Amino acid sequence: MRIETDKIGTLELPEHTLYGIHTARARQNFCLGSDLVNPALLKAMILVKKAAALAHLELKELDEQKARFIIQACDKLLENNTYNKESFPLHPLQGGAGTSTNMNVNEVIANTALSLAGYHCGEYSYIHPLDDVNKSQSTNDVYPTALRIAAIYKVRQLSRQLSLLQEALQNREQDFEAVIKLGRTELMDALPITLGQEFGCYAQAIARDRWRIYKVEERLRQVNLGGTAVGTGSNASKKYTYKVVERLRDLSGLGLAYAEYPMDLTQNNDIFVEVSGLLKTCAVNLMKISSDLRLMNSGPNGGLGEIRLEELQAGSTIMPGKVNPVIPEMVTQVAMDVMAKDQAVSFAAASGQLELNAFLPLIAHNILGSLDLLISAVQLFREHCILTLIPNEENCKKHLNNTSVLITALVPFIGYDAAALAVKECHGNSDEIKQYILENELLPKETLDTIFSISKASTYIG
Amino acid sequence: MRIETDKIGTLELPEHTLYGIHTARARQNFCLGSDLVNPALLKAMILVKKAAALAHLELKELDEQKARFIIQACDKLLENNTYNKESFPLHPLQGGAGTSTNMNVNEVIANTALSLAGYHCGEYSYIHPLDDVNKSQSTNDVYPTALRIAAIYKVRQLSRQLSLLQEALQNREQDFEAVIKLGRTELMDALPITLGQEFGCYAQAIARDRWRIYKVEERLRQVNLGGTAVGTGSNASKKYTYKVVERLRDLSGLGLAYAEYPMDLTQNNDIFVEVSGLLKTCAVNLMKISSDLRLMNSGPNGGLGEIRLEELQAGSTIMPGKVNPVIPEMVTQVAMDVMAKDQAVSFAAASGQLELNAFLPLIAHNILGSLDLLISAVQLFREHCILTLIPNEENCKKHLNNTSVLITALVPFIGYDAAALAVKECHGNSDEIKQYILENELLPKETLDTIFSISKASTYIG
Amino acid sequence: MRIETDKIGTLELPEHTLYGIHTARARQNFCLGSDLVNPALLKAMILVKKAAALAHLELKELDEQKARFIIQACDKLLENNTYNKESFPLHPLQGGAGTSTNMNVNEVIANTALSLAGYHCGEYSYIHPLDDVNKSQSTNDVYPTALRIAAIYKVRQLSRQLSLLQEALQNREQDFEAVIKLGRTELMDALPITLGQEFGCYAQAIARDRWRIYKVEERLRQVNLGGTAVGTGSNASKKYTYKVVERLRDLSGLGLAYAEYPMDLTQNNDIFVEVSGLLKTCAVNLMKISSDLRLMNSGPNGGLGEIRLEELQAGSTIMPGKVNPVIPEMVTQVAMDVMAKDQAVSFAAASGQLELNAFLPLIAHNILGSLDLLISAVQLFREHCILTLIPNEENCKKHLNNTSVLITALVPFIGYDAAALAVKECHGNSDEIKQYILENELLPKETLDTIFSISKASTYIG
Amino acid sequence: MRIETDKIGTLELPEHTLYGIHTARARQNFCLGSDLVNPALLKAMILVKKAAALAHLELKELDEQKARFIIQACDKLLENNTYNKESFPLHPLQGGAGTSTNMNVNEVIANTALSLAGYHCGEYSYIHPLDDVNKSQSTNDVYPTALRIAAIYKVRQLSRQLSLLQEALQNREQDFEAVIKLGRTELMDALPITLGQEFGCYAQAIARDRWRIYKVEERLRQVNLGGTAVGTGSNASKKYTYKVVERLRDLSGLGLAYAEYPMDLTQNNDIFVEVSGLLKTCAVNLMKISSDLRLMNSGPNGGLGEIRLEELQAGSTIMPGKVNPVIPEMVTQVAMDVMAKDQAVSFAAASGQLELNAFLPLIAHNILGSLDLLISAVQLFREHCILTLIPNEENCKKHLNNTSVLITALVPFIGYDAAALAVKECHGNSDEIKQYILENELLPKETLDTIFSISKASTYIG
Repeated sequence: MRIETDKIGTLELPEHTLYGIHTARARQNFCLGSDLVNPALLKAMILVKKAAALAHLELKELDEQKARFIIQACDKLLENNTYNKESFPLHPLQGGAGTSTNMNVNEVIANTALSLAGYHCGEYSYIHPLDDVNKSQSTNDVYPTALRIAAIYKVRQLSRQLSLLQEALQNREQDFEAVIKLGRTELMDALPITLGQEFGCYAQAIARDRWRIYKVEERLRQVNLGGTAVGTGSNASKKYTYKVVERLRDLSGLGLAYAEYPMDLTQNNDIFVEVSGLLKTCAVNLMKISSDLRLMNSGPNGGLGEIRLEELQAGSTIMPGKVNPVIPEMVTQVAMDVMAKDQAVSFAAASGQLELNAFLPLIAHNILGSLDLLISAVQLFREHCILTLIPNEENCKKHLNNTSVLITALVPFIGYDAAALAVKECHGNSDEIKQYILENELLPKETLDTIFSISKASTYIG
Repeated sequence: MRIETDKIGTLELPEHTLYGIHTARARQNFCLGSDLVNPALLKAMILVKKAAALAHLELKELDEQKARFIIQACDKLLENNTYNKESFPLHPLQGGAGTSTNMNVNEVIANTALSLAGYHCGEYSYIHPLDDVNKSQSTNDVYPTALRIAAIYKVRQLSRQLSLLQEALQNREQDFEAVIKLGRTELMDALPITLGQEFGCYAQAIARDRWRIYKVEERLRQVNLGGTAVGTGSNASKKYTYKVVERLRDLSGLGLAYAEYPMDLTQNNDIFVEVSGLLKTCAVNLMKISSDLRLMNSGPNGGLGEIRLEELQAGSTIMPGKVNPVIPEMVTQVAMDVMAKDQAVSFAAASGQLELNAFLPLIAHNILGSLDLLISAVQLFREHCILTLIPNEENCKKHLNNTSVLITALVPFIGYDAAALAVKECHGNSDEIKQYILENELLPKETLDTIFSISKASTYIG
Repeated sequence: MRIETDKIGTLELPEHTLYGIHTARARQNFCLGSDLVNPALLKAMILVKKAAALAHLELKELDEQKARFIIQACDKLLENNTYNKESFPLHPLQGGAGTSTNMNVNEVIANTALSLAGYHCGEYSYIHPLDDVNKSQSTNDVYPTALRIAAIYKVRQLSRQLSLLQEALQNREQDFEAVIKLGRTELMDALPITLGQEFGCYAQAIARDRWRIYKVEERLRQVNLGGTAVGTGSNASKKYTYKVVERLRDLSGLGLAYAEYPMDLTQNNDIFVEVSGLLKTCAVNLMKISSDLRLMNSGPNGGLGEIRLEELQAGSTIMPGKVNPVIPEMVTQVAMDVMAKDQAVSFAAASGQLELNAFLPLIAHNILGSLDLLISAVQLFREHCILTLIPNEENCKKHLNNTSVLITALVPFIGYDAAALAVKECHGNSDEIKQYILENELLPKETLDTIFSISKASTYIG
Repeated sequence: MRIETDKIGTLELPEHTLYGIHTARARQNFCLGSDLVNPALLKAMILVKKAAALAHLELKELDEQKARFIIQACDKLLENNTYNKESFPLHPLQGGAGTSTNMNVNEVIANTALSLAGYHCGEYSYIHPLDDVNKSQSTNDVYPTALRIAAIYKVRQLSRQLSLLQEALQNREQDFEAVIKLGRTELMDALPITLGQEFGCYAQAIARDRWRIYKVEERLRQVNLGGTAVGTGSNASKKYTYKVVERLRDLSGLGLAYAEYPMDLTQNNDIFVEVSGLLKTCAVNLMKISSDLRLMNSGPNGGLGEIRLEELQAGSTIMPGKVNPVIPEMVTQVAMDVMAKDQAVSFAAASGQLELNAFLPLIAHNILGSLDLLISAVQLFREHCILTLIPNEENCKKHLNNTSVLITALVPFIGYDAAALAVKECHGNSDEIKQYILENELLPKETLDTIFSISKASTYIG
């Protein structure tokens, strides 16, 4: 065991535990369950720390040895790309605006660096978590910067997945371009369309999502790193501020830029609300498409049965043949969850006060969580649903033949009121309607036949 | 024109306008559109003013003449039961925690009283809006008390409508008890049920809503009237506090009680969140039932077509025969709106600070708005949808006969895996499944026939 | 009285009522309260009708006389720019995806045209609401197109108001650039900033909002007019489709374009979710700024008291001198309401099914409602709060002098742990901290004085 | 490796893995991240399985040996009370309405039972996950029943924690009953109260929460176990239905009852919306109290500084002496998260269709998640914030002495308008106001002194 000290007192820690007293206290204060800080946020924060050490090294603002060990420690942690709970045990909904996660990262890097330098964990007089690792930094610039980096990486992944989904939908649009089917408005029989057009509509919606998500990266590139506590840059040199963002740009491979008005980004979180709102918009489209697929797949015999989704798993523990639309159901739940998380993000962002928003950890947790869910769900949706579903042309034809909605084509000839009366008198039966029109001499037989011919149905589909 | 004065300066007002300078200022400050404060809130506030005047009269805390004219003025305003925008022009989302609405009511009563007493509007030295009409009161006790009264009246109306809806649903349960139909889980064919059972389930859900809404009245009966500004009762005598609630109980006909801890009700609004949450719960049930009706009504030919809703209006400006499920669609939108309003109420209530919640007007606007919408929607739903829809037994039978889900009955005899295999091998075709079972000697013909007999279907329905 | 007939039966209507049987039925079906369809939507819909008549006239698809009277009727209705409830009595939360509002507009135009042509209301054989006014149209293309037009007009107004607000905030940034004050993070004393910087941050946030709202117009310009019922353009000629959008572009003065894939816009509403999400983002910023102003204005004596808002109305009916921050409170409530409305919009958009979203009226009601509220609130906020508030420099100075947070400047010299210990030992008292540092020889007096000099405080502000 | 087979095909599984092919497929289908099904739900589901086996054993509906091994397997799993991801690897947002989790539990129990019986995993001909473990059950009755049990256990824990919190608040009410302080409405100086009264108000609010949460258990006790697939009880004997609920009552120690109308509980989820709404109500109160504590704790020097929260961890990585109100901040975030989760629950419940709600897993995940968060947060709030905070009486006194709000006491003597004028003329300065009143002979000095005496302040506090 080793002993660490802070302003409040001392604490015993296992000898080789990489985190220190500040993390240990936070762990007790926020023991809310098994959820952990998003690994992507931890990774991005370590990138920030490395960039800071590199900047200090170049500017000789930090002892060269110290700087080199800190950089090496960051590399070691980044290498594995795993941020295990032994070192990073904190709950995401921590108080303190992310200070504890910053402390945690500082301590793990310091102790890793100490090990590399041949010291024991906790010998902070050689390399100090705050004076050295956190030098020229504050949680209030490090945390929002790291959140932006983590978000951009995920936004790119989501953008790629949406792009693939759009492509898949467009392929199905072509596959099904000859499958004429009944259109439905308000779930009621409407004019014919093709199954291909359905997927064309979905592709259009997802194309917009992809574009939105793609464009949002620009909004996330401005960082307030160097602004320190309240955005004024106290305790950081001008040179450092310039240098650290440059280094971070190199390390991350992202086009980051120092904000013109860093204090603004320290206190305002509308950009995350904007991003979250666009994730929600994507969720809305995914939910609508999933709902359509569930409707068209309903049956197999007692529903619409116009498509059949791939059978992925047994659907019931009691009804042996049952297959459920599990992927669209999963996608719908992800969509609802993302919509709810958007509320949390918005509420938290609106509740910021003066120079900081104390609820940034909630924003980070929910926005990164939404991105994670969407990235996976969009991929699964494409692979196990969109690409594998098949049409049931027989049912499509059956529904279309049954309908009396084709009478719409008569309106330009006999007028709305007469047409409505015909439908009413014949209780919506197609054959009777034709008979009625002939008997009442509303149209000559020839014209009627032309209008109503089955081949004519295809003229509806635009 | 007459001139009124306040701390800020003077203002010209039309001679016979019943409101005064405080209302006029508020009107300018909150000119947000044409929405108005809920009339039920104004009515309840006038009841409070009358109760206060009565209490003062009895206790001789107010000049008898003044008190009598104030009471008469309240009666005059209550008599018409219309709270027109000429006298009550304020927008509901006013700042000031409702002070402006309280001022508005005080001024209209004072000027009405002045007219009755033969004075001109604005001659407040005879009867003063604040010193007399508002005597021993503060917005902070008047407003929440009035909101509770308005809410209780509406809660009772909603409770009655829900009771009628429950009854209607139970009647349909009986009407349709012999209509066997396919059950559907996750929109996929499942075991048979009756259409009556569908409506029985709806009746159960609405019965719970009715009970919840009915019970909530108890929570609303505690009032903080007499607590004045912060709940401590400053500027009000103990006798008055006792008397005013008694009078208000008489006038309103409601079992109101003085809160044990009035300061609590001045600052905490969780009771409205609770009520709003229950309205939302009711909305959830209404939306689910509406969604089911829309599904079962879908078609008429290319959907499930198991029921037919009453035709209430032409459904399309282009497709002549089309009829839409407009009532369930309206109910669904009301439900979604109520769910959204619940968010506003919750967010506002959570944002209260110290001795008062400045956002009580938003809470009042949304909770009374939700109640209004639900009262009307539930009535329309019952009258124009539930009571008038008819089953399409032919379609119900058709879907049931097509399904292979009845094989579930074989599971206890041949096991889940064998049954699942049979469905797979026979592509879900009922007749082939029977054949397969006989050929593979899984069951003797006799047993199979018994299990599969159509009459047997009825045993599924419990 | 006149009698009108539809598929369901007949109905008596007052002789000069401009709406007809379809509106009358809808009025009964959706009697949900006194709310009305947003006038901007009605106006935009009349523009669409006029554009259609113009296109038909040019293409000779409609009798010239009829077309001219329809156009004249539209002009007459647009002229007054009032859409009174006598002619347009429908509730916004109507079922039928807006069919009733479309019917209403068709009927009012037809009857107005009939009057102009010297006929009686209801003599539809001369000019028919559906066959003539609605010719080549469906609610499903008219309604979303009109909604886009109405939204764009309002988006422009909001954009202008945000631009003015941004300018006002920037002016206050300059006005207050010399007012040094205590920064606060998590409501706790932090490093100094200027009051000007506070307003600079607000200006930055609002600048982003303005940009977002400005850019969103592009997304709204694509219209599906010409797509008719399901987006395939049935019952409309190709020439008409081309022409009508052209005419609508002229009439509206907006850069509208025919959607490449009209069916998509008939069924997908993600664009409204995107717009609503951006309105919500704006609401979040407005709420945060309002909250800050309320905090800084708190007191006047028992709070922060760093600014004083203009006194707009008496703040209490019981406490005579009290002034409340009524404008920020109003803005906050508008913000919360907009956030809630965003939920309704999202929920409704996600609940669309197949070729149409039945809940578009709810989307229209909430999105236009949010725009209306924001346009007014942003203007009031600027005029009666931002432009008129004044700083209380004395209080700003007092808070700054009291704080021990300036010790942060010592960290680079004596290290975090030593500085933290100093604060602890001296219970945060500034003078004692200096003494402690000298006594413990942590720094020479000269250095300490330089770091701690009051003029030095200004170096914090960046 | 072992091989398992289902309707779709075969799959290789590690020899000793306790789950089987159905779980393996679900794992691939729903690979959404590292979240896992709530352990409390798994535990409750195993209780259900044990109850079913006991019932079958008694009724001789299942081979005695099989039944005994199944019961033993359940006991073994329950004993450890850990539901590790090696056996239970599924993501909570799974499609299929919980079928996969039910399959998972069935398979783990079957394989555990097989091991106990000396067989290998996967030798289901001896003990079958579906034919034996799931006998007479369906996901649609097992899952909602287990969710109710899990929820009740957590509701009880939360109820207990709220009870302790209420008690703690009441103790603080007594502790601080003599600390007179300034009341604040809309953040502006209002009439005096005591710090004790603040905590009394909080105690009242939490008392209501405790009562609500306590009462909700009744609503959760009705279970649909025995209803199987659609609530009609297919494939289950009447005797079993009766017996299994009895056994489950014994095993769980909860007063469970078989629902009168099981089909209702299979498809309707309003009870979870009700519960979630009450959790949200509790969240609203926790957030309001937290916000108050953060306001009163603000400073220490540049804020209200009326209380001081316990120092739990260093508050800043850059400002050494800074201490943040981390517990109220954490509680606030939990509250916001619970409010957002309520939206997910409501949205999902409203989206149910016909005989089942496919989104029950989302409901379960969010409602159990909210309960977990609240249980921990309420405990931490009490232990590390409420019980340990201390008043700063000096600051309380200072704010009170500065205020001019005591002039309210003069209103009954000199009238509202005269009092308002006095405040205005004297710019709110207490001393000047007294002088002004004497000079203008509004009151004799003696009366004035009595009204304004400091001891008089205490009369405000009721």
